Amino acid sequence: MDRIAYFDNAATTFPKPECVYQALDEFARSCGVSLGRGQHKLSSKASYIADETRELLLSLFHCTNKKVVFTNTATEAINIILKGIKIPVNANVYITPFEHNAVTRTLHYLNKFTSFNIIELSANKTTYELQIEDIDRQFKDKKPFCVIASHVSNVFGAICSIEKLFLTSKKYGAINIADLCQSSGLIDLNLSSTIFDYAVFAGHKTLYGPLGISGFITDFPNDLEPIIIGGTGIESANQDMPSEIPIRYEAGSHNTTAIAGLHASVEWILKTGVNVIYKQEMRNHKRLIDILGSYENITVYNPKLSVGVVSCSFDNYAPDEIGQVLSNMNIAFRSGLHCAPLAHKFNGTFPSGTVRFSVGYFNTDEDFDMLDDALSYIEENS
Amino acid sequence: MDRIAYFDNAATTFPKPECVYQALDEFARSCGVSLGRGQHKLSSKASYIADETRELLLSLFHCTNKKVVFTNTATEAINIILKGIKIPVNANVYITPFEHNAVTRTLHYLNKFTSFNIIELSANKTTYELQIEDIDRQFKDKKPFCVIASHVSNVFGAICSIEKLFLTSKKYGAINIADLCQSSGLIDLNLSSTIFDYAVFAGHKTLYGPLGISGFITDFPNDLEPIIIGGTGIESANQDMPSEIPIRYEAGSHNTTAIAGLHASVEWILKTGVNVIYKQEMRNHKRLIDILGSYENITVYNPKLSVGVVSCSFDNYAPDEIGQVLSNMNIAFRSGLHCAPLAHKFNGTFPSGTVRFSVGYFNTDEDFDMLDDALSYIEENS
Repeated sequence: MDRIAYFDNAATTFPKPECVYQALDEFARSCGVSLGRGQHKLSSKASYIADETRELLLSLFHCTNKKVVFTNTATEAINIILKGIKIPVNANVYITPFEHNAVTRTLHYLNKFTSFNIIELSANKTTYELQIEDIDRQFKDKKPFCVIASHVSNVFGAICSIEKLFLTSKKYGAINIADLCQSSGLIDLNLSSTIFDYAVFAGHKTLYGPLGISGFITDFPNDLEPIIIGGTGIESANQDMPSEIPIRYEAGSHNTTAIAGLHASVEWILKTGVNVIYKQEMRNHKRLIDILGSYENITVYNPKLSVGVVSCSFDNYAPDEIGQVLSNMNIAFRSGLHCAPLAHKFNGTFPSGTVRFSVGYFNTDEDFDMLDDALSYIEENS
Repeated sequence: MDRIAYFDNAATTFPKPECVYQALDEFARSCGVSLGRGQHKLSSKASYIADETRELLLSLFHCTNKKVVFTNTATEAINIILKGIKIPVNANVYITPFEHNAVTRTLHYLNKFTSFNIIELSANKTTYELQIEDIDRQFKDKKPFCVIASHVSNVFGAICSIEKLFLTSKKYGAINIADLCQSSGLIDLNLSSTIFDYAVFAGHKTLYGPLGISGFITDFPNDLEPIIIGGTGIESANQDMPSEIPIRYEAGSHNTTAIAGLHASVEWILKTGVNVIYKQEMRNHKRLIDILGSYENITVYNPKLSVGVVSCSFDNYAPDEIGQVLSNMNIAFRSGLHCAPLAHKFNGTFPSGTVRFSVGYFNTDEDFDMLDDALSYIEENS
């Protein structure tokens, strides 16, 4: 296959650090078995790597007071949390205008059984910033049962002032749920505070790990009902799921190889430094905006504070039409709604969506040159 | 780490065929991104590999008339099916005495909300065979709503006459659910018949694929309620899950790398031949039984027809006690209940369980010699 200029890092970061590929291959070949403490040496080693990966994640988020639950996808984590907090009838559920279908479809589903209010948090249409004073008034008017916020929008890259938001909502006793899929390991965040009830991460995105391993961080020990029930390797005679966390939410075989890959990627992040990675991504982000902004036929949606992801529209081309042209020119990107129709309603780009480019730590000069060439070609031919 | 004689293939087969490791590494490095038809070349390639893997599985099970749904674990697949078929009040749910906690815990959970009858199918205590005539009488007496059967017991390796069972239950209109975790790719099975409503497979067990990819095969297009709700990459404006199968049950990022590994392993099975693999595993199985049977301090539980898995008990040692000794001698195995307490109640080995050894295609002479040496040591010192 020809060289691809990869600007689809918001879906999955690619490539990964070399150490991740090496860890995946080495672990799969030497120890890719089911975990299980004290059963045999290979499974004990797999357990040890899993435990150490949890510790690395807690260290990354400065919250050794909390626990890591592994799930296969961030979507699964969001489902466990949103179903598990048992939203009561008539409760007020606040979401940012940028939430993903993992959140909005799950709320829509739950709302069929229990009628509650889904309310959008106030945000500025030009800067994409949350309006904390307005939000405080929203909370005063309708007390929040829970607040769900993407730290970084997967459509516009807008960085949400999540600490200010959660400090405000905690005054009203809200359960705060942070979606860190587009920010974990990229923006330094201290999760040790009680304002973060649940924080969801995706291993394969800004954590630079493999597909197949995600999870959430919490200090609520076991008050959610598991949504996947089955074997846990412990307490097997008990026909209820064990109350012990994390195993309560981890029925079935763990993907130990993916965990070993995440172990390597989080080690790489800690060694490289979150702020070093952030600076490099911001350089790539700025370069992307500069290139897109240099074309008169492109409208860039540019939040006041953003990272990683940039959405735009092309004159004379629907987002889906631009797809074939860019794909033919070996540019990897996404067009459409990016599983976040709400964000496009906010932005006035619903239902056709936008063309989304997203950078990572590893984008090269050649990637940007290829993108520039492709955009020139489109401008000349439009 | 020292060489390990691996007899824990019922948990995860290990090692995998070399082509699987190569496929995992190559795919992760060249194309380990999220799938998505027609978005860009890498994601299109990932989609293509996923589609082809579904076709290979349908070919393996001789059922191109059916569909493959991918899940992250077989436990997730069993949860989707058991929750999705909506077992009515007072229904009769039949299970074999060998079902895993993925089945029994899920039924126990559902039974808290809807009271139904969980009935064990009649089986012979000596041969571990299902008693089809008795079962027919059971069905006549209490009409089956559904029947759930492990094709091969994960504790005793007992092969269940699943076609005879499902032909019988289908006469009474039952929904038939096959758990093929310990048999898929090992026992040639034709799933094209309507007697198989749902068949669950685990990629990392007898299919010799990586951890992180499992699923089920069905011809029921979309009548189950999804248990994990979220982004699907298609129909994003729709706040309900799409009705299209398989995507209805596959919210969130697919583990495309694991799918590429499963692609390689199923190709390897088809190329090697299911019956060739079966014969090799039966040779290893017989060798295991012969070695275990040669020690007077070991009681082997030996079903009339079995494959892969052998359970036993040691005189003077509880299963958990034997663990440390065998582990120190670099034998990989499992002791205890193996997430199947019911099977041990059937066998009279509840609650302490058994010591379980399970072979794979790749066990070597050295593995068996190491096991023999370890068992000699235990006999001499007990």
